[in-house]
Amino acid sequence: MKYFTEENSVEAVNARMGENINPRLATLMTRLVAHLHAFAKEVELSQEEWECGIEFLTRTGQICSPERQEFILLSDTLGLSMLVDQINNRRPAGATENTVFGPFHVVGAPIRKMGDAISLDGKGEICLYEGRILDLQGNPIEGAHIDVWSDNAEGFYDVQQIGIQPRWNNRGVFVTGADGEYQFVGIKPVSYPIPNDGPVGRLLECLERHPFRPAHMHYLITAQGYQKLVTHTFVAADDYLDSDAVFGVKETLIASFEQVDGGNTLWRSQFDFVLSPI
Amino acid sequence: MKYFTEENSVEAVNARMGENINPRLATLMTRLVAHLHAFAKEVELSQEEWECGIEFLTRTGQICSPERQEFILLSDTLGLSMLVDQINNRRPAGATENTVFGPFHVVGAPIRKMGDAISLDGKGEICLYEGRILDLQGNPIEGAHIDVWSDNAEGFYDVQQIGIQPRWNNRGVFVTGADGEYQFVGIKPVSYPIPNDGPVGRLLECLERHPFRPAHMHYLITAQGYQKLVTHTFVAADDYLDSDAVFGVKETLIASFEQVDGGNTLWRSQFDFVLSPI
Repeated sequence: MKYFTEENSVEAVNARMGENINPRLATLMTRLVAHLHAFAKEVELSQEEWECGIEFLTRTGQICSPERQEFILLSDTLGLSMLVDQINNRRPAGATENTVFGPFHVVGAPIRKMGDAISLDGKGEICLYEGRILDLQGNPIEGAHIDVWSDNAEGFYDVQQIGIQPRWNNRGVFVTGADGEYQFVGIKPVSYPIPNDGPVGRLLECLERHPFRPAHMHYLITAQGYQKLVTHTFVAADDYLDSDAVFGVKETLIASFEQVDGGNTLWRSQFDFVLSPI
Repeated sequence: MKYFTEENSVEAVNARMGENINPRLATLMTRLVAHLHAFAKEVELSQEEWECGIEFLTRTGQICSPERQEFILLSDTLGLSMLVDQINNRRPAGATENTVFGPFHVVGAPIRKMGDAISLDGKGEICLYEGRILDLQGNPIEGAHIDVWSDNAEGFYDVQQIGIQPRWNNRGVFVTGADGEYQFVGIKPVSYPIPNDGPVGRLLECLERHPFRPAHMHYLITAQGYQKLVTHTFVAADDYLDSDAVFGVKETLIASFEQVDGGNTLWRSQFDFVLSPI
């Protein structure tokens, strides 16, 4: 096996790694090379296709900026982000499932009083969110931090419209009391497209895939002694529930949104979150 | 199979493709997603490792410029470029094998008189290159264009040192006559490192791999009715023959370089190239 051939290609490349390298890196690279070569062999990748791939990756890297991460978008749309999320957040039955974090969380959102509004721009259909933070036995968890964020009625997060939306619009942190209950007022979120004016958008188009995410409210829930929960609740009956561009939907995360007669408040969504112990 | 799970992840993503997309694109994406997910599952990719991968790809894209193609370098060092070259250039026994094209070919090098020098900077150990262009039956091929290029004595191609090396230094095109013979004067090339000050260089370092290519002369040989031959001859006994950073070496492409007594000329390398019919 002195020289590289079509048959020994994987072994030839992997044999080149040093003996004292990080063992985890060795595992990752060994399997990466194996799959990369198996892919090229299976499809008999042509020179032109290889060039097209090089060009696509280059454009994907070049469009990245502090405000835009096109490789994460690529990972999201190929289901890799969800898969990694899933692999790293297997939970016992009964615990609320994780889903993708997404790029729009902001650290340091204001801690608000239980029941307060997070929607500050006066747009959208007002919705009351309420429920409990529970452990696996159904006991309330006190002192849980519930960090929530959503888009506004036009489908944009505040950080996508700095200077247009009020600061911390549709964001807030709530801390549970002894009853484990939470309650806040937001809007019924709307579905929106992921950025689709770059290489990933073009790829989706070639695959006849739309770029939309179904409407959802983001949650990051932390409590001492429990695993961090990163999840969304999805608006039941959304048009894109079955075709989330980033594959984030799980059956258990679809929340009912009921219409209510409550003055300004048009909707109510009740959802209990169950945390897994560390 | 309505929603994405760890188990159905590949099918969930691939089922999203439209029915009227380019069938070859469908094949490529289907297998790409399958291998990408299989990789993540096999190694149980952690969130931090995923982030590290995203960051690596981003840096690789961002360092690319009209003068530098870091993704090709990545493909080269993972053996993918050689594999694609191999898959697309399977030849009958007896035909000269292909190897990687490399980034340093320049279209339009001067057609020189048979026997002329290509080395114009007066540096390096002068070497006489000679041999024949043959068909599979051993007959000489007339009118074959032999486009040759190599680094200079310091390990740089002319295009890497514009304004320092003479234009077209160590480059030239030769056209065979009825005897199929070629002869030109170059230098005995030297081994050199691929660019290793970017993400790929850092990766090689982490893998305890050196960035060197063994010394070689590049050939692009074309003749009417024959497959294009893109190859190198490698200098026998080079220190890096067994560890070419881009896996380009093939046993059959190692050429003898004999020392000669010929005034300025110190070396002679004889090599016959055998072309495959189209």
